[in-house]
Amino acid sequence: MQAEIITIGDEILIGQVVDTNSAYISKELNKIGVSVYQITSVQDDKIHILKSLKEAEENADIIIITGGLGPTKDDITKATIAEYFNDTLVQSQAVLDNIKDLWKKYIKQPLSQVNINQALVPSKATILMNHFGSAPGMWLEKDAKVFVSLPGVPFEMKALMNHEVLPRLQKQFELPFILHKTLLTYGLGESKLAEKIETWEDNLPDFIKLAYLPNLGMVRLRLSAKGTNEQLIISEMNKQIKLLLPQIEKEFAGFEENGNLEMLIGKKLTSLGKTLATAESCTGGKIAERITANPGASIYFKGSVVSYATQAKIDILHISEDLIDKYSVVSTQVAEAMAINVQKLFKTDYTIATTGNAGPTKGDANVEVGTVCIAIATPKGVFSKTFNLGNHRTKVINKATNKAFEMLQKEIFKN
Amino acid sequence: MQAEIITIGDEILIGQVVDTNSAYISKELNKIGVSVYQITSVQDDKIHILKSLKEAEENADIIIITGGLGPTKDDITKATIAEYFNDTLVQSQAVLDNIKDLWKKYIKQPLSQVNINQALVPSKATILMNHFGSAPGMWLEKDAKVFVSLPGVPFEMKALMNHEVLPRLQKQFELPFILHKTLLTYGLGESKLAEKIETWEDNLPDFIKLAYLPNLGMVRLRLSAKGTNEQLIISEMNKQIKLLLPQIEKEFAGFEENGNLEMLIGKKLTSLGKTLATAESCTGGKIAERITANPGASIYFKGSVVSYATQAKIDILHISEDLIDKYSVVSTQVAEAMAINVQKLFKTDYTIATTGNAGPTKGDANVEVGTVCIAIATPKGVFSKTFNLGNHRTKVINKATNKAFEMLQKEIFKN
Repeated sequence: MQAEIITIGDEILIGQVVDTNSAYISKELNKIGVSVYQITSVQDDKIHILKSLKEAEENADIIIITGGLGPTKDDITKATIAEYFNDTLVQSQAVLDNIKDLWKKYIKQPLSQVNINQALVPSKATILMNHFGSAPGMWLEKDAKVFVSLPGVPFEMKALMNHEVLPRLQKQFELPFILHKTLLTYGLGESKLAEKIETWEDNLPDFIKLAYLPNLGMVRLRLSAKGTNEQLIISEMNKQIKLLLPQIEKEFAGFEENGNLEMLIGKKLTSLGKTLATAESCTGGKIAERITANPGASIYFKGSVVSYATQAKIDILHISEDLIDKYSVVSTQVAEAMAINVQKLFKTDYTIATTGNAGPTKGDANVEVGTVCIAIATPKGVFSKTFNLGNHRTKVINKATNKAFEMLQKEIFKN
Repeated sequence: MQAEIITIGDEILIGQVVDTNSAYISKELNKIGVSVYQITSVQDDKIHILKSLKEAEENADIIIITGGLGPTKDDITKATIAEYFNDTLVQSQAVLDNIKDLWKKYIKQPLSQVNINQALVPSKATILMNHFGSAPGMWLEKDAKVFVSLPGVPFEMKALMNHEVLPRLQKQFELPFILHKTLLTYGLGESKLAEKIETWEDNLPDFIKLAYLPNLGMVRLRLSAKGTNEQLIISEMNKQIKLLLPQIEKEFAGFEENGNLEMLIGKKLTSLGKTLATAESCTGGKIAERITANPGASIYFKGSVVSYATQAKIDILHISEDLIDKYSVVSTQVAEAMAINVQKLFKTDYTIATTGNAGPTKGDANVEVGTVCIAIATPKGVFSKTFNLGNHRTKVINKATNKAFEMLQKEIFKN
């Protein structure tokens, strides 16, 4: 069973928004055994949309379309779909009632004509009710192929995928079994890692594919298996992982299916009953932000001092001016002092501290751009490392964040 | 002049990575007058890649391909391109020298055969030297159409786009003039805003297109014009903006071309010689992270106390327990006290404070999920607002961050 995703919107093709919807839809389709053959992003242009619908119909069994359903003049998806299905737009009372309801609850202003027009739908469409917005989802069929049109607003699209589209697809089609396992690794680059596990990779069965996904100092190894025999796929996948793990003992951080690095850390800290705080300079709050993006963070995460200015390190983290003068503000000595002092301040078991220069210019410390010192304080002591993370600001911040998580994870998983 | 972007990689089609490369490439192509007709993401599969190359050749003059150039077995782009061009792979001494050089400088380990193989390129290709990685960019031509293959690692791709691809395209093609202007607005939803400016929109000249881009409590209005007469386009665009601005005086935050909301705030604070700090609870460092993502933030941003735990608000921000008991930790009173105390702590002119519940469960304060109190302290005093931002954790955090910037921006732009 193959799907194609079509995302509609000039904003994508001029690079103003990144299309995150496709990744979400792909992931969810894969989970239920639907492979995505292609993702196509097209303009808000009738002829182009019609062409892409025709091509998708040739390639795929399921076509998911997002975007172009808004109330404004640039949104033409609905009329174009009606044309593709030789259909006309009719007013849906159910959709209109839903819009009225939303307006009463949240907008508290009278409905305008453009809002009322959002209740117009192709007469052949089954309505997928959108409880978070005025644009309904639509389900249409043609020669055993399914076309679904969803709004482009991510959380509206997601709710419709989860509650309407996926259950309906599972009911309508007999789907194969797809299993993905992704191993998070750090410490080795893509080619070194490939060399290390070459023999194992060469002996993988045909129905298991391996991919290397390098990103910001980590490499993800993704194993994908697909077939009809669920039992065989699961047991072979487990067998292959069992063979692999001893070969990457030092590099293996965890399974991505259990969460990203900070989630793995969060789970471990929660299970240990331990707590965490951070003192961030060059990472500017990125570490705290990534930790608190996850529900349940408040169980183990107490907070952070983002001591961006040197004076803040002195005033709030109580780093002595002498220490800064002697070793410079970007030094392992200052990083360790930050880690220790923030540990006292928040009364936590573990802390992470960062100090460095993310660029583009040399800062207070006059050190090379990309130099970052990271310290970890534990109940038993403190340790630190210095890294050179290149000269791209965003990359330096993100790599430093990953390195900090790597150092902390290795430490807490020792226990 | 039309381009098509083809991104190659199973990881995109199973939703494991979001394709951010396409947005970057689209934006850069648009700037030099090349419109992107379509973005197509395809699997690491020879037949599929060949098919997409053929289709792209029919639709576009310029085809930019990213991904699938890594050293591992799943990377088949190079061999497939060679096949498409009826070509063979030959070793490039220049690429090999570059790889040796990179290894000597950064990897400090002997070259393996998979790395050496990265110096194999189609014999008809012009090499675009990649100074940040081992996979070279490749430029091929066929019947006046240009094919460019770039590595999928974002910063390697970006460097090659900027230093090799864009200058070569500008030299080779006579390009039209494209002008985009994007107005950031807040305070009104998409349909209300559309109603407000309907007459103006209806009278736009044909060569200027308007799009509404709603996101997390803001709406961006994008005006796009394209043509050969650069003078006419610029003057008509300016005229239309001049007509529009008085109609959205309250909603207009700035031009996105001058930066996002936090960059506009940063520039204003820098020009005023004023400083900023934050005290963040439910936003967990997101505000600090967004500010410090921008170069030059250290001029005006002093730091943040992420007081995630209630105890941290008491210990570090010196909020009195009585105040918390009386009004609850999620209250405008506590938000205002946080803003005032962090102002003293960092000795800044302005501060932002947030306290709320991002969900998914009710926290310490037992308030409704999505309730967020935001306070702004200024040299003259403090003010605050309470918002209900829905029940989606990530959305609550991001909307609260946007609302905080909105409140601060309105305040500092009064001056």
